[in-house]
Amino acid sequence: MKEALKEAQKAFDKDEVPVGAVIVCKNQIIARTHNLTETLTDVTAHAEMQAFTAASGFIGGKYLKDCTLYVTLEPCLMCAGAAFWTQIGKIVYGASDEKRGYSLVKKPVLHPSTQISSGVLEEESKQLLQEFFLKIREN
Amino acid sequence: MKEALKEAQKAFDKDEVPVGAVIVCKNQIIARTHNLTETLTDVTAHAEMQAFTAASGFIGGKYLKDCTLYVTLEPCLMCAGAAFWTQIGKIVYGASDEKRGYSLVKKPVLHPSTQISSGVLEEESKQLLQEFFLKIREN
Repeated sequence: MKEALKEAQKAFDKDEVPVGAVIVCKNQIIARTHNLTETLTDVTAHAEMQAFTAASGFIGGKYLKDCTLYVTLEPCLMCAGAAFWTQIGKIVYGASDEKRGYSLVKKPVLHPSTQISSGVLEEESKQLLQEFFLKIREN
Repeated sequence: MKEALKEAQKAFDKDEVPVGAVIVCKNQIIARTHNLTETLTDVTAHAEMQAFTAASGFIGGKYLKDCTLYVTLEPCLMCAGAAFWTQIGKIVYGASDEKRGYSLVKKPVLHPSTQISSGVLEEESKQLLQEFFLKIREN
């Protein structure tokens, strides 16, 4: 998760909403990404979406069953929906997203075999986001 | 929708699940895409996701408020979640997806300003999908 936070910081430095993601497979980081929606003018360029694409490219397969996604913010429905298709083994996230988090939907959104762990480095993840929104409100 | 069906046929011809999409803005088609999940080894390469990226690139903005997405199959949660972020003006789809369609989730998934129209060229859209699954089961 510390590596995901480093990615979030990179997003912050680019004036992007600071969310970072890392995918680990067999103790190896196979994808490091951060939110690039502004840079790419593309709402689909969330950290997680890029991570899924990069990880699939790395392993040469569509499914990420033996992988863990570390992401600093709770995935939105788009990213959770993508996670479903990847059948990813585990998702670990930091801050909860009380507005757009996938867990607001009561129906199970993730693949039944995907484990979830939340609140990991939550404060650090949240702080970076709060700092960002404070910064853009001041400008 | 006929143009979206042509795209779905292209997917079919590549042994991809045959789903096609088109985005129209001010009476002009600004994106034509079809499912490429197998070709790109990437579950995020649904027709709609590519269409959002292409359309945003075309108009040079993240939001597609004045656009309509025509897609041959009801969007899944990933694509509906992406549609939310684009704030797309209208979605017109053909066949319903009774297993993975976004409308299975009771909570509103799309942006409140997005209009929905379904069942357009439904039979043609469904037939292509049925033909595809029949073909892969035979092989």
